[in-house]
Amino acid sequence: MSELAGFFYPRTATGQSSLLPAPPWHYSGDLLTVEYRTDPARVAELLPPPLAPAPEDPGAVALIWADWQSCGDGGAELLDPVRAQYRECLTVVRCSFAGRVYSRCVYIWVDADFALARGLYQGYPKKLGSIHQTRPHPFGLAAPRIGPGGRFAGTLAAADRRLAQAVVTLREESPGNGFVNAHPMAHHRWMPSIEKGAADSLDELVSSGSASFEGGQAWRGDAELELFPSPAEELASLEVRQIIGGYYRQVGVSWDGGRLLAERGVPAGPAAS
Amino acid sequence: MSELAGFFYPRTATGQSSLLPAPPWHYSGDLLTVEYRTDPARVAELLPPPLAPAPEDPGAVALIWADWQSCGDGGAELLDPVRAQYRECLTVVRCSFAGRVYSRCVYIWVDADFALARGLYQGYPKKLGSIHQTRPHPFGLAAPRIGPGGRFAGTLAAADRRLAQAVVTLREESPGNGFVNAHPMAHHRWMPSIEKGAADSLDELVSSGSASFEGGQAWRGDAELELFPSPAEELASLEVRQIIGGYYRQVGVSWDGGRLLAERGVPAGPAAS
Amino acid sequence: MSELAGFFYPRTATGQSSLLPAPPWHYSGDLLTVEYRTDPARVAELLPPPLAPAPEDPGAVALIWADWQSCGDGGAELLDPVRAQYRECLTVVRCSFAGRVYSRCVYIWVDADFALARGLYQGYPKKLGSIHQTRPHPFGLAAPRIGPGGRFAGTLAAADRRLAQAVVTLREESPGNGFVNAHPMAHHRWMPSIEKGAADSLDELVSSGSASFEGGQAWRGDAELELFPSPAEELASLEVRQIIGGYYRQVGVSWDGGRLLAERGVPAGPAAS
Amino acid sequence: MSELAGFFYPRTATGQSSLLPAPPWHYSGDLLTVEYRTDPARVAELLPPPLAPAPEDPGAVALIWADWQSCGDGGAELLDPVRAQYRECLTVVRCSFAGRVYSRCVYIWVDADFALARGLYQGYPKKLGSIHQTRPHPFGLAAPRIGPGGRFAGTLAAADRRLAQAVVTLREESPGNGFVNAHPMAHHRWMPSIEKGAADSLDELVSSGSASFEGGQAWRGDAELELFPSPAEELASLEVRQIIGGYYRQVGVSWDGGRLLAERGVPAGPAAS
Repeated sequence: MSELAGFFYPRTATGQSSLLPAPPWHYSGDLLTVEYRTDPARVAELLPPPLAPAPEDPGAVALIWADWQSCGDGGAELLDPVRAQYRECLTVVRCSFAGRVYSRCVYIWVDADFALARGLYQGYPKKLGSIHQTRPHPFGLAAPRIGPGGRFAGTLAAADRRLAQAVVTLREESPGNGFVNAHPMAHHRWMPSIEKGAADSLDELVSSGSASFEGGQAWRGDAELELFPSPAEELASLEVRQIIGGYYRQVGVSWDGGRLLAERGVPAGPAAS
Repeated sequence: MSELAGFFYPRTATGQSSLLPAPPWHYSGDLLTVEYRTDPARVAELLPPPLAPAPEDPGAVALIWADWQSCGDGGAELLDPVRAQYRECLTVVRCSFAGRVYSRCVYIWVDADFALARGLYQGYPKKLGSIHQTRPHPFGLAAPRIGPGGRFAGTLAAADRRLAQAVVTLREESPGNGFVNAHPMAHHRWMPSIEKGAADSLDELVSSGSASFEGGQAWRGDAELELFPSPAEELASLEVRQIIGGYYRQVGVSWDGGRLLAERGVPAGPAAS
Repeated sequence: MSELAGFFYPRTATGQSSLLPAPPWHYSGDLLTVEYRTDPARVAELLPPPLAPAPEDPGAVALIWADWQSCGDGGAELLDPVRAQYRECLTVVRCSFAGRVYSRCVYIWVDADFALARGLYQGYPKKLGSIHQTRPHPFGLAAPRIGPGGRFAGTLAAADRRLAQAVVTLREESPGNGFVNAHPMAHHRWMPSIEKGAADSLDELVSSGSASFEGGQAWRGDAELELFPSPAEELASLEVRQIIGGYYRQVGVSWDGGRLLAERGVPAGPAAS
Repeated sequence: MSELAGFFYPRTATGQSSLLPAPPWHYSGDLLTVEYRTDPARVAELLPPPLAPAPEDPGAVALIWADWQSCGDGGAELLDPVRAQYRECLTVVRCSFAGRVYSRCVYIWVDADFALARGLYQGYPKKLGSIHQTRPHPFGLAAPRIGPGGRFAGTLAAADRRLAQAVVTLREESPGNGFVNAHPMAHHRWMPSIEKGAADSLDELVSSGSASFEGGQAWRGDAELELFPSPAEELASLEVRQIIGGYYRQVGVSWDGGRLLAERGVPAGPAAS
């Protein structure tokens, strides 16, 4: 018998095997964002109580591609980069709870197991996908520069079907890279019961945001976005009614835990706030 | 606002996007098993209380390769086989709890997201890996037959490092394919708190087994097994002291939920037993 | 300086590194075939001189999924199955040359480098793809049996786009698994010159077939087939006008070289015929 | 019958399907290089006649990781980046021919089919592998900067085995990123005959280099390098006797064809020189 160590599975006597180190987690990467408006009813139906639609522009959606390197506090993953690099594509909407506006990720695909597990822990509804995003580079003809006329594409596939593709052509500097993903995240952490018919064993509404952030100059421009149907996905149900804009930004972020907002629908007490 | 449907993430108004259908889950596949003895202390240190080592042969380990097709009750995945096929390699030991012997998976690697998510729900400590296992085939020179002299290999890699490789040469029919993975599973379902320093939000000891099972003739034979170290894994700490045997068997299994044995270390009440 | 050994790249002093062993090459696997008719003009435009369309049913096409294990003469790959297993999906048409009918692969996708290299050597126009095909299994609910009512699907994707999907429902035993892929193959082996504007450095018409073959009972049934467009592919140009039938068969094949039919358009001499 | 279009397989009436566009090919990417000395006999035995070892420092080896984006002249791949991005790891030595020193790639692994095909056309002995290399990024804690103290790792695996791993710690600006890969390439283009026992159908010694090049400031520093054995590889035979140095450089390159140096051992005429 043993007290086990390790933040996540597999927990062992030493903790060495854990798929995830304990937070903080650090990220360096590039974000390609397309914001658009869909039918607000399609957003509302993805918000379980006690969440309500955002009071303004409730049909706004951000589809975000991210090309990341990430690591725990020691940074050991950076010297074994197969354990540090991953890409993701996520769909973010806004919602309101207790008088405050939150961002909420309703769909997300990643291409590494550590990112998948991290997301399930944080309440991101992660699946595996194949995600690609044009990279900027300062030399040669095979890459755009981050500046006027730079063209960046993002593509997403899962289960061997393309689900989304976007092209953003940068035009000018921008104060930020969109407003949809600009709030703290409000996510549910659910785990179904092992017993059939029983209520979820875990049912929490949690909030988190960056513990620290630094970013380069954001750029905005024109965006094209196509969504494709799949029998196993509903991303295309958030149909594109009006493009708001496209953005590109390089960022560095750290994440270091969040707060419990409600458990089984009951708001958490002051100790947790 | 909406009541959401879907057994697992992402939950939506329709449930169509869920990475997992609700159980039962059905599996058809081939199992290549190598059983061996390691230092019993290495097994014991992987068993958190209230689990204790098995009373007999407490250092016995099974390393199992499985080449699966799986589906939910409708079987729709079988007609989109990218969502049905996966391979896994798992390390199983035995333990005892409340006077009964259980099997317990201490390490497991799979190559599909639905299998990873299913495992986290069931308490299997899944990571992604690259798993290969020789397939039997009735024709040609590029496959063994399931019978005397048939040679089957299994290999496992994760994060671009080979972790294990085995070769089993079948010799004779066998009443079963080993004793280590022959009990109901006793697994922990853990989810760390979103708040730093807080206790796990989910901490359950659960048990489950097959809801139904059918299998072909099992075969046994001689086995070779090599384990390799990795900075991110501890499989090789379960060093091979003595090979018990190698096995091959084709099986069909259904899984349909389990039972809660204890929560935060407190045995579950009679309602759950 | 050194005489190098090895059938294919990389050639070294020992030959150990070669991506391919010298033939013969052995294959054991399952074939899922859908035969259909397209516009004969679409087939004809894929046949360079001196090839001509087949005299009968010149618009017949076979789309074939194959789930293979393969090895060289020693079979060493079978004990390191990551080097033995691969899947492929290929489009075969017929053509005629010098009074004889040949089969010809016009598109093919595989999921392993050794298969890609083998194909380029044999004149198969291989790309990488993601190929899945329902597997039969004798046990459980997650697999069809090879027999009446058995349903088998095949799917193909490349560059993150689905290109084809088929479902075959077996109905009855069949004398074979189609007529389109039933002839020796007539393929071109081309290698562009390293010098711009120069003629191809290699320009051969070659023929080959199985050196040995064994197969199980073939089955036929009803087939559905969908082809999807891609900016990098033309498979969908071979549009489905009429389904001929669907087939399933398990086979064992050996391949051991072919014959040169013509070089730079000039028929090869009697020594090669 | 049809004249076919397309630089490479599959050739069709339109050329749309070709895995490769015609050159020129453009590349933007980052190079991580470790140069070292091995036993010169190990290098010499990889040089077939008429190549001879380099007159100076004949045991020098460069192991190079490259993280590329590439495209044809139109750049269409950059807006579908799954067809533009790839990584490679290559082993380069030097040799001499006709009084001139050349670089020569003796082993190379890539992770995309278009890169594999491009290499076979150019005489690079490509296999598929899993290649990772730490990326620099200007923000956050999860990436080094290109400058003093920046640490960059490269890892290589093939067939589920790690073959090489390196760490380079940058110290100072450097006039270049090494001397081993600084010459035009001298490669063999081989294609075995389709007929057993016959001589190679293609046997050319070709040379090529960059048609254009631009690069950022090169950096050098301390390097660690480990090579690991594999039953299917001989990279580890080029054992590390002495590290020369480690380098990092961002570059943009175009390639636009080469020259035929010799065919079947006979030097090409003046038209080609």
